[in-house]
Amino acid sequence: MDTSCESSSRPTHPAGFFADESDLRERFPGHDSIDFPVAVVLPAGGSGERMGLATPKQFCTVFNRPLISYTIQAFERVSWIENIVVVVAKESLHLMMDIIHKFCHKKVKVVLGGSTRHRSIFNGLQAFGEMPDGKSLRKPKVVIIHDAVRPFVEEDFLLRITIAAKEQGASGAIRPLVSTVIATTSEGYIDHSLERAKYRASEMPQGFVYDIIYQAYQQCSESDFEFGTECLHLALQYCGTNAKLIEGPPALWKVTYKKDLFAAESVIKDFLSQACVITTVCAESAELAHRFQKSLGTRSMQVDVISGSFGDNQPLVSKTWNFIHITANIACLAEISSTVKSLHEAGQTLLYPAVLILVHLSVLPHSTLTERMGQLGAIRHLAMEAKQRNILLYAILLNHNENAEQWEETVESASEITAALIKDRNPALAGQLLVA
Amino acid sequence: MDTSCESSSRPTHPAGFFADESDLRERFPGHDSIDFPVAVVLPAGGSGERMGLATPKQFCTVFNRPLISYTIQAFERVSWIENIVVVVAKESLHLMMDIIHKFCHKKVKVVLGGSTRHRSIFNGLQAFGEMPDGKSLRKPKVVIIHDAVRPFVEEDFLLRITIAAKEQGASGAIRPLVSTVIATTSEGYIDHSLERAKYRASEMPQGFVYDIIYQAYQQCSESDFEFGTECLHLALQYCGTNAKLIEGPPALWKVTYKKDLFAAESVIKDFLSQACVITTVCAESAELAHRFQKSLGTRSMQVDVISGSFGDNQPLVSKTWNFIHITANIACLAEISSTVKSLHEAGQTLLYPAVLILVHLSVLPHSTLTERMGQLGAIRHLAMEAKQRNILLYAILLNHNENAEQWEETVESASEITAALIKDRNPALAGQLLVA
Repeated sequence: MDTSCESSSRPTHPAGFFADESDLRERFPGHDSIDFPVAVVLPAGGSGERMGLATPKQFCTVFNRPLISYTIQAFERVSWIENIVVVVAKESLHLMMDIIHKFCHKKVKVVLGGSTRHRSIFNGLQAFGEMPDGKSLRKPKVVIIHDAVRPFVEEDFLLRITIAAKEQGASGAIRPLVSTVIATTSEGYIDHSLERAKYRASEMPQGFVYDIIYQAYQQCSESDFEFGTECLHLALQYCGTNAKLIEGPPALWKVTYKKDLFAAESVIKDFLSQACVITTVCAESAELAHRFQKSLGTRSMQVDVISGSFGDNQPLVSKTWNFIHITANIACLAEISSTVKSLHEAGQTLLYPAVLILVHLSVLPHSTLTERMGQLGAIRHLAMEAKQRNILLYAILLNHNENAEQWEETVESASEITAALIKDRNPALAGQLLVA
Repeated sequence: MDTSCESSSRPTHPAGFFADESDLRERFPGHDSIDFPVAVVLPAGGSGERMGLATPKQFCTVFNRPLISYTIQAFERVSWIENIVVVVAKESLHLMMDIIHKFCHKKVKVVLGGSTRHRSIFNGLQAFGEMPDGKSLRKPKVVIIHDAVRPFVEEDFLLRITIAAKEQGASGAIRPLVSTVIATTSEGYIDHSLERAKYRASEMPQGFVYDIIYQAYQQCSESDFEFGTECLHLALQYCGTNAKLIEGPPALWKVTYKKDLFAAESVIKDFLSQACVITTVCAESAELAHRFQKSLGTRSMQVDVISGSFGDNQPLVSKTWNFIHITANIACLAEISSTVKSLHEAGQTLLYPAVLILVHLSVLPHSTLTERMGQLGAIRHLAMEAKQRNILLYAILLNHNENAEQWEETVESASEITAALIKDRNPALAGQLLVA
């Protein structure tokens, strides 16, 4: 199901969030050998009852974007994945279509789910080949089945799952058990406890040669459809295909409870911490920029310093969601305004909110405070416009101090405020002028 | 190991974080029948390598307080628990003693751990009865064994575990499996997958009649000490005591990975959301207070309104960590200062940082901005003092507007900022004056 989208260029991912592609080629020479069609089925029909929330967890939002959009994006950015079939409950169909449109997902087809997870997956698999509406997706050689609520799956792991599935017929992610598993009696006592080292938690993603898993589902019993939990088990039972198990990274965790949603938000915030300081040619600004770089560095933030305009530094800024404009001239709002425009036009804020911090290095005496408060009005106005474009604009005022020690403290305080604003990304504070 | 502490009165827990005691009595008539000694052993010798952090996870901090202090507190507040034996590695001994002193833990004795988890637990159990230094703890009837990295255990569940242990000899928390568990072959393929419904994850806490678990450990083989994972298993194997398994709440989860630490921080922040609006007799302030109450209520915050001073409302304020002072007179800093003093003296900010927001309802014209900026200096100064006492002071300025619609917007904005400050609890922004 194609959707049109105003912004044609897609943003890349925050640096570090997923592995770099060139890096992948070195580590997995197989990368270039994915010369067969690969597709994904993403069952997303769950009700989220374990979470104790009214909204199913795949539709809970982080930065106003539903979790499922993060998961879709994790697949969509992989060049060798052709199609993503998302299976939703009938009551979520409109919501899902809105999500696809709003976040410009390009490779997604939505199909309706069945009454259980296995029925939904089978519906998803049937989307390949001829469809009732005459539209069809190319039948993949390998299909990856994943959970909508595991948004942090990385390309290198998808590659390993895909290659193993092609070679062995099936493959699946496993993780060490976090707790001891025990068999219980019907009276609520221990029957026996399992030796932890011999067992693994079976996680997602799993990969299958399409024909194998499709055949397995065709032979499924009603009881399999109703009570089964494990696709790997079906491939083994009906096609004699024993899956290759691959130990996955911790990042494969599943958002199950409310606290997991908190964790997902923090993980995403954490990954969005790279910043870019934009400075003018003025010597004071440039010196302050490098102090910021150093001080934010001690707070585990990677910071680049560029001079000149946003547009001149396209490759760098397209990987960054935090910008710190240092200026000695508060009248430079035109420049801020132009950065807002550039970020928006590059489609950079479609997926994540950007933070833009105006750091005003003031050398003026305090008597012009009234004037400065007037400027605050202009900043607030611009911040409101920026917010519409998913850009959070804040301002920090630094009064230059001749006393070296006091000046050091002021810079440290400004850097602390900057780190806090970037970390919290709080829209309620956009447009505020903070004093370092 | 007793520690002295300056503040004698211990704060209660944030409302909702743990169940209310009077509530407990109704639900569990057994509550009053804990007329036997109960103690806790908390092994905390882990290295936290799974987290990929230099600091073992039980010593990672949330609000500058190590996770283990939260866990200790969860037990310390339970009136019928006598002693908590914390078992630490030799290299963490000093750190642990500092934590006990700093956060005024009263019921804790620290002992040194062994080379494995089971050896550490056994060392912990040996702290009851005669000790080499001549000091001893009363031998408990029931001992609860728990993990240092499961800080959210609640009293009602501890009660159920304790009563079941007393009656059956042993008891343990279980949770449904989140993932399917599979047995693997040595070549990395599936051997078989377990039927999820018949198995449970064995979690903590577990409870034991002290004599049973002590006897079991005395009979342990070297191999049990080295490779065993499950205390319940030892009680069964060596004493023939089969534990009663009790399904625990989701809150029993264990901080294992970095994302879990993020989640723990968010859970704690979430529980600290109850607020108290303190207003003066002036009609405008009182009206604004009720608007705040309503508006914050729509943001899922429970808000009480009190008038008069902090001291007059002791029972209420002792359960609250967020205070919103509404005033039309910015000169009321003396009152804010007195709230800071009261909070500190009540020991209220020992365990959690308090947030104090000065909301200044201004009816003055803009020409006095310079004067107001002067006040900002005074607020910043007071905020620095408050921070030393674990109190985060912020100020919000509201300019009264005759236009009803605009005034509505201003109040809404102030309430949004208030909710954001309370939610984020960011020390870097303390002392700032925000404009609604």
